[in-house]
This record gives sequence, structure tokens and C-alpha cells, in this order.
Amino acid sequence: MRLASRLDDLGTETAFAVAAAAADWKARGNDVYPFHLGDLDFALAPHIVEAMDRAIADGRTGYCPGPGIPELRAALAEDIGSRRGTAYTPENVTVMTGGKPVITKFVQAVMNPGDEVLYPNPGFPIYESQIEYHGGVGKAYRYLPTDSGFAIDLDQVASLITDRTVAIIYNDLQNPISAESTDAEREAIAQLAVEHDLWVLSDEAYFEMRYEGESTSIATLPGMAERTVILYTFSKKFAMTGSRLGCAVAPPELGKVFGTMNTNDESCTTHYVQWAGIAALQGTQEPVREMLETLRGRRDTACEIVNGTPGMAVEVPKSTFYLFPDVTEAIEIVGARDLADFAQRALHETGVSFCTRNHFGRPQPGEDRRYIRFAYSGLSQERIREGLTGMRQWIEAAR
Amino acid sequence: MRLASRLDDLGTETAFAVAAAAADWKARGNDVYPFHLGDLDFALAPHIVEAMDRAIADGRTGYCPGPGIPELRAALAEDIGSRRGTAYTPENVTVMTGGKPVITKFVQAVMNPGDEVLYPNPGFPIYESQIEYHGGVGKAYRYLPTDSGFAIDLDQVASLITDRTVAIIYNDLQNPISAESTDAEREAIAQLAVEHDLWVLSDEAYFEMRYEGESTSIATLPGMAERTVILYTFSKKFAMTGSRLGCAVAPPELGKVFGTMNTNDESCTTHYVQWAGIAALQGTQEPVREMLETLRGRRDTACEIVNGTPGMAVEVPKSTFYLFPDVTEAIEIVGARDLADFAQRALHETGVSFCTRNHFGRPQPGEDRRYIRFAYSGLSQERIREGLTGMRQWIEAAR
Repeated sequence: MRLASRLDDLGTETAFAVAAAAADWKARGNDVYPFHLGDLDFALAPHIVEAMDRAIADGRTGYCPGPGIPELRAALAEDIGSRRGTAYTPENVTVMTGGKPVITKFVQAVMNPGDEVLYPNPGFPIYESQIEYHGGVGKAYRYLPTDSGFAIDLDQVASLITDRTVAIIYNDLQNPISAESTDAEREAIAQLAVEHDLWVLSDEAYFEMRYEGESTSIATLPGMAERTVILYTFSKKFAMTGSRLGCAVAPPELGKVFGTMNTNDESCTTHYVQWAGIAALQGTQEPVREMLETLRGRRDTACEIVNGTPGMAVEVPKSTFYLFPDVTEAIEIVGARDLADFAQRALHETGVSFCTRNHFGRPQPGEDRRYIRFAYSGLSQERIREGLTGMRQWIEAAR
Repeated sequence: MRLASRLDDLGTETAFAVAAAAADWKARGNDVYPFHLGDLDFALAPHIVEAMDRAIADGRTGYCPGPGIPELRAALAEDIGSRRGTAYTPENVTVMTGGKPVITKFVQAVMNPGDEVLYPNPGFPIYESQIEYHGGVGKAYRYLPTDSGFAIDLDQVASLITDRTVAIIYNDLQNPISAESTDAEREAIAQLAVEHDLWVLSDEAYFEMRYEGESTSIATLPGMAERTVILYTFSKKFAMTGSRLGCAVAPPELGKVFGTMNTNDESCTTHYVQWAGIAALQGTQEPVREMLETLRGRRDTACEIVNGTPGMAVEVPKSTFYLFPDVTEAIEIVGARDLADFAQRALHETGVSFCTRNHFGRPQPGEDRRYIRFAYSGLSQERIREGLTGMRQWIEAAR
């Protein structure tokens, strides 16, 4: 039976192949350290579970409005607005089954076939997949290593904008590289968007996953409110990855479109999970603080060992739960052919499983350094120490 | 800011306007009988809630595979297969956030822009919306009233098939009209599909919502397994509308595509709700039987009053929870201009809120009878009696 041609342009998260390889290696009796997953090993907070059970007991188990229950939309408007120093109304908020649906719905709403959309590379692979799947032309922009971490190549961004460009996807507090914009960089992106009348998808999945400093949303810069869609998710902050709850914050006319898309695609987001979301936003924030403290300890341990490993180096990120170390020399030390070979050998020699730069978009011309991504959100500090020490010893032994 | 042109072709469920009008009328202090909603006023069964809580306590709160957890896919394969007298494997099953996502994912997977897809009219409005939104040409096929209820106009179906036709959407146990195929009708549709090499989306949302007889799936007819996608949902059978849990049953190569679409669109379906789904399938079926008995009582009460109302007539349906009475003469009796006027006046005079034929696709040429849809799933037998008796008295008084 014939399938539709559009499927040829549908990408995916190739990181799932890494998960499969790790599972396979584990199934063969080996100890595996899963640094490949952007998931969290923290329990759902009790007050969140209680709110969900109460909602079920109260009969909140039927259909609810496509754009979300009014109470959650109001709570999100208040929380997201106040944390960004601006004001949103419930009309700005469309509840979705996680943050990810915001990507496809944004792309569908603002991009015609043939239009160009800029997106970060390395970056979350679904950006590129959804742009191309819906007939657009993805234009990847790169990051350059600097003395203070990675920076967006702003000259390249400017040079990629044409009269077919309709949008730019921007991921401050970046997955996978844990980069963070300076004020100047964020303002430069905003200025380009205003100047060329572009939509902006601001992926703020990690906005509150930070260990020091304050996050700033590009949506709050001059001229940006009417052109920015914020991707918000409960997944990371509240360890609710499996709950599938997030939202888009958008100009109301776009919010209306998102609501209609929800009605078409899945009717609504799970009703009682939305009440759990209200509890997450308005209840005690102690579990969030505790989790961030735990993650900070994991980050410090991981950075210390990585930076003590021959041929590996990483900046200590102030946010997210990823490390994106340069492993160019480590690859040479162990005599690996390439990133894929390095990753496979690391798994088989040390049990450490991770994604590489190549899982986050096609490498760009001129890239001469090699990177991998460690997610330290799903392993205890002890397991991190064990796994990464084993990897260090493997590389040391090859010197 | 400019929006994408494809949005011009995005439809919706216009029934939401009915819900809004009913809510508005209620907010102004009036008693409203909500016959417009295809929702259920039954609690989530305790063993389903317990399974969900247990899953959460067991830490099943993180991401899970895009196509669904293996345990639920296996349970669905077993349950759906055995109830249809056939065999499915987990590779046939892709878990989704309800039955509705199967519509958009089926359309995207099998239809190129310009391709034609046949769909029932009156029928669930999202079929037409998704066909047109993704650039296809929707071809509506009709039902004809017969002495034994509605029947698909098979001559029309055959005449609508061209060399651009790639699929037919088929909804046995039909929403809104509660029609049910004879074996001959189902076989005729299957024969056309095989003959013209068409994909079939078999919307089986109401497969087990029946008061007598046995359901048959078109997927089990000769030559159909490799071309049929079953839309399965927990929504109706287990009163889980707000839980958002369903699946597609499809040939494995299509199942793979659906899994990749899930990865792109929403990562996965809520993790712990999937464990609740296993409990629904494998636990006690007593709540299902009790609910069906209750619904049967509501159906009988509603049919009795409708058929005792001047100018209204309906067959007693053996399945679903909808009545689709012919109200052509009732409209004349009360002097309403059209269906919309009739519905509005019924709401304001009697508090009875319902959808009309016009909420289920554009009327086709030659339609000379007028129909409305009563959903009796969300009101008690007493409220049904009260509401519909008031409506009967209103029409009687106008004679």
C-alpha cells in the first residue's frame, strides 16, 4: 500500500537509537550509565499527585476545552508572566500535551510551504524535522566556542535571512549545548526579528532550570510580544516529563489557532493532569528547589571528572542539565574513527551511554571540533561519579 | 503578523458553538439539559484510578516510548484482536492521546495533496477538516433512510471513486446517526476498497457501545487487514474521555510511521495513564456492563418521548449513545425558519440543548429531511425525561 510522500521529510529524534543500543547492551548483562536521556529520576511531588486524585474524585474526568481548562490557563498566565516581568492573560495561553506540540503547531501556523525558518544547530532535532515535514526550508544557524562558552554566530544568522524567511527558532538555555545568551546576543536576535518581521519560537523548556543568575525571555524585549510564541513545559521544572503537560504563550489570534488545532488533533489535554498542573504552579516549590540542588551536585561532579579526563573539556553550565564537552582529543587518544565509533566503544568499554553532536542536526561545514552530550538528570551523583570515572580511566589507559 | 495559508482549510467541531450557547443560557440563570455533548457522566472506575496511582508510586512518571509502553500495546493487541476474532501483535498497535489523533495521523500518512478521500456525511466533522487541512479533496458520501434505519448510499460511494481516490473513512456504529452496517453493506465497502486498492480508516469508537447483537470490524474481512487502520479509544467504553487514551491498529509499516509521528508531535502519551489503560482492559468489566445498562435505560426513555412528540421520529438504535431523530415536521409545527432557529428556540423555550445535522458536515444536494442529534450519555434518566418532556410539551402547544 502506498504511503504519502510527505513522510520522506519526517525526521525523528535519532537519540532513540542510542537508547536502544544502551538497552541492548544492558540486556546482555552489562552495567549501563544512561547519560543519553533528557529525563529526570525524581518522583512526582505528593501535592501534585494529590491534586490529580482530588480532581478525579471530583469527576474532572470528562472532556474539557481544547485550549485548556480556564483555571490552568489563568494560573499559567500569572506564573509565566510574573516570572518574566510581564503580563499575560488566559487568552495568551493554550494548554498542550507537553512542550513539544508547540513546535509542530507553531510551524504549521506561521510557515507556508517554501518558506524559510532559521533554527539552532546543534539543537533539538524536532525543529528541523517539523520545518521540513511541513514543506518549509530549514536554515540551520551555528554556535561558536568563545572564552565564555558558546555564542550564536550572529553574522551567520543575519546572512541567512532572506525575503522567504518567516520565523526563527530560538532556544536560550540551550539543549544540547547548555549555552545561554548574553543580553546583547538576545537583543541582537530580537532586533533581527523585528527588522525582518519574523515570528519567533522561544523554546523556554529550561527557563527555570538554572543554578545561578536570572533568565530573561526574548518575548519581553521591545516589539517582541506580538511576534513571539513561548514554548513552556511542566516536564523539567516539576519532573513531569511523563505527564505530558505544557503550553504555548502566544498573541491571542495565534492562541485561537492553537486551540482549533488541539480540537482537531487530540480534543484536549488530559483533564485531571491539568488540575495537577495548577497544584504544581501554586503549591509548595520546595521539591523544585531540592531537585535543582541535587542537579547542581550532579553537575559539579560530572564537570569535575570530565575536566579531569584527558582530551575532554567543558564549561560549567549555569543552566539546563546537560554537558556538551569537546572530546576532539579524547577521540584521538582512544583511536576512534569518529563520534559514532567513540560512543559505541565508550558504551562497550565503560557502560557510559551518551548522545553525540550528530544527534542534534547535521554537522555544518567547517566544524572541526567534536562534541558529545551528557545528560546528568537521570543518574545519582554516585552513579555519575562511577560511570564518568570509568570513562576517564579508559581514556587514560589509552594514552 | 501573517499566518500560514493552510489555516484557511482547517475546520473544527462547530458543536462547540452549541456548548457555548448552552453555557451562556445557563449562566443567565436558566436550567439547561445538555444533549449536545458526546461525553459521559460516569466516574472513572476505582480499579482504573488505583492502577494509575500505583504506576505513579512505582515511578512510572518519566518519558516512555513514542508508540506506547510495550505492556499496553500487548494488552491492546490481545483485547482488540480477540473481540474481533482476529490476531494482532504489539507491532500493530500505536498508543495515542485518544482516538482522535488517529484521524490526523492516518490522513497525513496515506494522503498526498490533491488526493481524494471519501468520508461519511453526516459524520464526525474532523474527518473533513483533516482531509482538507492536509491538502486533500474530501468526497462526502451520504446515508439514506430505509425501513430499517439509515443505510450508506453504496451507489454514491462507488460513483465517487476516481483514480485520485486513496482512502475511505468508514464509521460503522455511526456518530451522529447511530446507523449500523448490515453484513452486506460492510462487505460492499470492503469490496470497493479492495477493488480500488484504497486505505480504510475504520472508526470503531463505538464498537463496544452496543445494547444487543455483536459488532463486526471491517478489518477482519478478506483482503482488508493490510489496508485498514482501526481507530480505537478508551473514551466511551471506559468513560475515559478526559483521560485521552486510544490507539491505532494498523499494518506494522504504518504503525512505525505513527510512532515516528508521535515522537515528533508529543513524545508519548501520558505514561501512568497507559498503566490505567491496562487495568481498564484486564480488570473487572462490571463498570462497563453497568454503564451500558444505564445507557440502555436512558436510550429507551429518550426514544419513547421523542417518538411521542409531534413531528419527531427516530429508530431505536442498537448502539452508540446518540439519537438522530427526523424533526422536519416539528420544525414546521413550531414555525422555525431552519435547524439553527429550531435549536435556538428549543434552548430558550425548554432548556434542551442539542446539535443539528449541520454540525456534522455540509448538507448534501437533495436532502429534504431535517435531523437533530441528542446525546443521552451525559444526563440521568430523570433529567432526560424532564428535558425531553418539556420539549414535547413545547411542540404540542404549538400545534
